[in-house]
Amino acid sequence: MSSIDFNQVAQQFTTFYYEKFDSDRTQLGNLYRDQSMLTFESSQLQGARDIVEKLVSLPFQKVQHRVSTLDAQPASPNGDILVLVTGELLIDEETNPQRYSQCFHLLPDGNSYYVFNDIFRLNYS
Amino acid sequence: MSSIDFNQVAQQFTTFYYEKFDSDRTQLGNLYRDQSMLTFESSQLQGARDIVEKLVSLPFQKVQHRVSTLDAQPASPNGDILVLVTGELLIDEETNPQRYSQCFHLLPDGNSYYVFNDIFRLNYS
Repeated sequence: MSSIDFNQVAQQFTTFYYEKFDSDRTQLGNLYRDQSMLTFESSQLQGARDIVEKLVSLPFQKVQHRVSTLDAQPASPNGDILVLVTGELLIDEETNPQRYSQCFHLLPDGNSYYVFNDIFRLNYS
Repeated sequence: MSSIDFNQVAQQFTTFYYEKFDSDRTQLGNLYRDQSMLTFESSQLQGARDIVEKLVSLPFQKVQHRVSTLDAQPASPNGDILVLVTGELLIDEETNPQRYSQCFHLLPDGNSYYVFNDIFRLNYS
């Protein structure tokens, strides 16, 4: 386990990710690489370009993520970090939020991190 | 990406894990190692012994997991697998299930897999 504070990285990453997602999701491409994977509901995508294309094409104009829980663990001796987020999504003019769960596997790259794995699911009750 | 079918491994692992959990959770120790980590709600544990002690001490006699969604991705070139489960928990004589999210990071070990990371959260609405 390295001296990096994985909880702090996970917090900072998640805050940055959802700020970008909610303000201009065309900018999320820098957080993925060619080998990155996204499972978004039943869709599976690989590579930064296809992933961002998918995220940009989602059928809403306005979106707001509200994080309820955020937990992180070191995922390897190399500095990988696993993050599980649960939260609520508020879409367009809707007033009833939808609950979601999202799991990120972050890999270190120099002084920053990128998303290697990303699995997103809405929680229907 | 190896020739292993990560979706099949994730399915088989998850079925086995919840069957053991729901029938006799003292037997879950074989699925963890000394370096394994569990975040269960706000509790953090490391090592098979402490993890099983925590799981066994949970304050219910009967429990039933019902998986709603199960998604998997290869998490490294070494055969690691990331799994995100969302589902419902039915505890003791309660009739209202509680929703949960659980993320597993599975590492290969010979012909089987063990849990390196495990993050569990109830989803309150």
